[in-house]
Amino acid sequence: MPVPEQQRAAIATVCLSGALEDKLDAAAKAGFDGVEIFQPDLVATPLSPGEVRLRCADLGLSIDLYQPFRDLDSTDPARFAATLRRADHTFGVMEELGVDTVLVCSSVAADAVAEPDRIAEQLSAVAERARARGLRLAYEALAWGTHVSTWDASWDVVRRADHPALGLCLDSFHILSRRSDPAPIADLPGDKIFFLQLADAPSLDMDVLEWSRHHRLFPGQGAFDLSGLLAAVHAAGYAGPLSLEVFNDVFRQSDPLRAAVDARRSLTALTDHSLPVPLTGHAFVEVAGDSSTADVLAALGFSRTGVHRTKPVERWEQAGARILVNRAGSEAAVLAVGVEAADPPAAARRAARLGVPALPRERGPREADLAAVRAPDGTAVFFCRTGARDDWSGDFVPTDEPAVDGIGVTGIDHVGLAQPFDHFDEAALFYRSVLGLTAEGAGEYAAPFGLVRTRALADERGTVRLALTVSRLRRGTWAPGVSEPQYVAFACDDVLAAARAARACGAPLLDIPDNYYADVDARLAPAHLAEYRELGVLYEETPDGAYLQVCTEVVGGRLFLALTQRIGTDAGYGWTDAPVRMAAHRRRRLIREVAGAR
Amino acid sequence: MPVPEQQRAAIATVCLSGALEDKLDAAAKAGFDGVEIFQPDLVATPLSPGEVRLRCADLGLSIDLYQPFRDLDSTDPARFAATLRRADHTFGVMEELGVDTVLVCSSVAADAVAEPDRIAEQLSAVAERARARGLRLAYEALAWGTHVSTWDASWDVVRRADHPALGLCLDSFHILSRRSDPAPIADLPGDKIFFLQLADAPSLDMDVLEWSRHHRLFPGQGAFDLSGLLAAVHAAGYAGPLSLEVFNDVFRQSDPLRAAVDARRSLTALTDHSLPVPLTGHAFVEVAGDSSTADVLAALGFSRTGVHRTKPVERWEQAGARILVNRAGSEAAVLAVGVEAADPPAAARRAARLGVPALPRERGPREADLAAVRAPDGTAVFFCRTGARDDWSGDFVPTDEPAVDGIGVTGIDHVGLAQPFDHFDEAALFYRSVLGLTAEGAGEYAAPFGLVRTRALADERGTVRLALTVSRLRRGTWAPGVSEPQYVAFACDDVLAAARAARACGAPLLDIPDNYYADVDARLAPAHLAEYRELGVLYEETPDGAYLQVCTEVVGGRLFLALTQRIGTDAGYGWTDAPVRMAAHRRRRLIREVAGAR
Repeated sequence: MPVPEQQRAAIATVCLSGALEDKLDAAAKAGFDGVEIFQPDLVATPLSPGEVRLRCADLGLSIDLYQPFRDLDSTDPARFAATLRRADHTFGVMEELGVDTVLVCSSVAADAVAEPDRIAEQLSAVAERARARGLRLAYEALAWGTHVSTWDASWDVVRRADHPALGLCLDSFHILSRRSDPAPIADLPGDKIFFLQLADAPSLDMDVLEWSRHHRLFPGQGAFDLSGLLAAVHAAGYAGPLSLEVFNDVFRQSDPLRAAVDARRSLTALTDHSLPVPLTGHAFVEVAGDSSTADVLAALGFSRTGVHRTKPVERWEQAGARILVNRAGSEAAVLAVGVEAADPPAAARRAARLGVPALPRERGPREADLAAVRAPDGTAVFFCRTGARDDWSGDFVPTDEPAVDGIGVTGIDHVGLAQPFDHFDEAALFYRSVLGLTAEGAGEYAAPFGLVRTRALADERGTVRLALTVSRLRRGTWAPGVSEPQYVAFACDDVLAAARAARACGAPLLDIPDNYYADVDARLAPAHLAEYRELGVLYEETPDGAYLQVCTEVVGGRLFLALTQRIGTDAGYGWTDAPVRMAAHRRRRLIREVAGAR
Repeated sequence: MPVPEQQRAAIATVCLSGALEDKLDAAAKAGFDGVEIFQPDLVATPLSPGEVRLRCADLGLSIDLYQPFRDLDSTDPARFAATLRRADHTFGVMEELGVDTVLVCSSVAADAVAEPDRIAEQLSAVAERARARGLRLAYEALAWGTHVSTWDASWDVVRRADHPALGLCLDSFHILSRRSDPAPIADLPGDKIFFLQLADAPSLDMDVLEWSRHHRLFPGQGAFDLSGLLAAVHAAGYAGPLSLEVFNDVFRQSDPLRAAVDARRSLTALTDHSLPVPLTGHAFVEVAGDSSTADVLAALGFSRTGVHRTKPVERWEQAGARILVNRAGSEAAVLAVGVEAADPPAAARRAARLGVPALPRERGPREADLAAVRAPDGTAVFFCRTGARDDWSGDFVPTDEPAVDGIGVTGIDHVGLAQPFDHFDEAALFYRSVLGLTAEGAGEYAAPFGLVRTRALADERGTVRLALTVSRLRRGTWAPGVSEPQYVAFACDDVLAAARAARACGAPLLDIPDNYYADVDARLAPAHLAEYRELGVLYEETPDGAYLQVCTEVVGGRLFLALTQRIGTDAGYGWTDAPVRMAAHRRRRLIREVAGAR
């Protein structure tokens, strides 16, 4: 069967926050073609179904599905009679809405029918009433259905019923959460797949109902193989909409337009099989700073090599590490990340296809035309080809200052970006789809002021790395540091030598408690423990390596710098030691506050 | 064996937010006798173990336990050799801290030993090194231990080892989460129970590790029978500290002093078997208001019966419902709840025993001396004996205004209190322990701007009822109504007649969408549907009853009033319809905003 070039993109209103009107507006603005109307959203709106139909038409949205119709089959004749009445009412609403398909999910009730033939019989009775009105039922197996909980069980029922107004609704969550094999879906008759709902999810070891209701994600944000499922559904000949149905606690309360744009991007990324533009490294990191930032960079062996032609921005360099210090006085810490891309304009075009417009930029005469986009946390991402004609570095007038001696920094290892609470999963999809980075795994650690979730992203060869963190709960008033600091981690071949040199130059390196070293000694007994203690090196081992870091205090409000060294193939990002680092940062701030109050 | 009159109260530092110093301060201020030092807290502090010992001594805290020592037993001789080295280090830290007991939890490692005799042998080897230094090991079965996951399995190992420096640590979570029977604990030799850790938890159907790490609660906040466990442990002869070990995402990031006071209260409530002072009804509810509040009360059939002698407070009454309108211009909605108590001073003394001091009150001459305390959300709770000599109503000078006709309100059904995010579980314990209310069950609903958790509390006879709600995630910037409105629900015998009368008097009742009534018809087909629709009645059925409510718009910023009727034995609190009510409230606000902008 032919695979449609462009499938319609739809979204269930339950994915988004707000009243029905907010949700429809957001879906239309984000570029969806259609929606599933979630029944409780309709019940709560003062718009009549006919007015909802008109509103959708005005917005250019089709209504592709009405959902859900629950607990259809029953061993109790009185309950089934009430169900028929309920179905007739539902069909009336559908006619007013102008939607022809309703989602019927497998029963979770105590009186659910066990025998497939009898379920088929009851479904057929309702389907026949639907057919008479030009409507149809899409039957879906809930992963926690009383008797029907797998897609093949739902297909068995539909096959037995063999009714033209009864088909399947396939939902990736229910299929993949049960670890069912989606491959045999390819052999289904495509015209019996009435609807396809897509949701991703993280790998979690929890009750499937809880997992489904709170932790679903948009495709590409989690761990499910949605491409494989989609291939099977396409092979069967399904050509209906690709529709998102994501129950997620965060999305349910965040800006619906942001969430809808994120959702739309997930479908584009899922169906666009073009390869991302390869990245080859960090070009630069631009940070907000002042003279104290410059002092710290100097103490870390950086030389001020350039001043921007028109903006209050300085370029500082050491070997392959380039830091732009923007003195315009921003609140943020990391303003921009420049990545080396083989073809910057192509990277920007890919971003635009994914709903990420190019960043409008003020450009002076003779300044480079840089391709840049905005990440979900507000950080600008520049696609660079350092060394090419018209590259970004030409915007800087070289200084005549003598280069200072480096301390052994060789480049930028990674950038640590504390994320805004509502946009952590959005960021994962952004970096995966727009930059082609791969998530290296997600984790969590207990920090002094609450739990922190982590997610590392890197390109295939590890030349560009980002470390994202977010509080597990949005911070309240007690926890200090509601905005966690961001950081730039510099790569060193010999972090001990680098730290020694930095300390000699007066770099404000963090003091790490003796208790920490006593514990490292007890657990790991590393060879250079005395030096680690002397220099404030945090040392952690992973199964495949070790990670060493020395951190500066927080400069300019929300930024610190780290000297790091990776040993082995998978050294991680220093997250095991992050709580110790955070406690040390907090202590340093308290000391400064006390000193300032004097 | 004798049960100790007063057992020492301790808390694990891991329960609280902040750096170790914050935690110790909070524990001491909240009145704990001792602490368990959580090893990662010690590792991150710049205080040496000796300095921590001194700090605790200065604060009047003993150090009762050092924890945890993980993965002691191993099938790998090299790993076990490293464990012995790690143990020696731990013992050194313990000597400096001045603590004699370390918690050893059952191994979760892949190389964990399976045979009880061999585990006993390895534990004995470490216990022998401990004994030589005057220290001892308390062995605990983690519910997810590789081979030892139940308390009786851990006892089997300890019994086999039969070493004087090796005993048990019992943890209520690990025992009760596995649904193990704690009764046989009574037959253990009491001197082999080295330590007792207490934690409550809600009933949740999830992976036990996830449940334990994120959702533990202080005793009395969850669903575990801790009294039963405690009785068994006491019967065995245990006389060591009662120590709290609670991993909870919210407490981990909330004010540590608040959390410590809450924690201390939980132990007092657990061990104080005196009965709470019986309650017999709502005396009054004091709300912040202005002339619009007064207008709405008048339209709902209330008469202004009194004016406070010295404060800008009016008393409004209708049958058994009394509302005090405070015109001092507060931000809050519900300022105070007055409950009828058989013995108000005794209720206040009980509150004081539970760490809830009496509320200092400005009192004019001839005004009643009212016993009042502050609930976690800031609401004042007054213990009243309306009608007794010197009761609260004497503070009001009667008005000469003619009484208006009532509309059939008979009293206060319940008060709806939207809770601050950090204090939802604290509130449950407060109302249970201080007022003797019982939690009628916890739930959750999907509201237009995010998920909402619910918890109803009532006295045994249902004369005092509170409905608590909180957002599942602390609200961000998108969701409007970051502060959900609070409300007073009035009881009516005939809510239809009351609503009709209120509407005739111009009460600003909410419009409920037609879609809602179409859905109620389809689902429930109630007899009086046409009247519900006409009057804006929300109608929901529970297995044992029905709940009808008509709500006003939000008045004075954060308050609405509801006319309600209960049918049957368990009518609930109208939470199924809350999302419809919330959408209607939001729509009414938008309309007002648009009108205001014109």
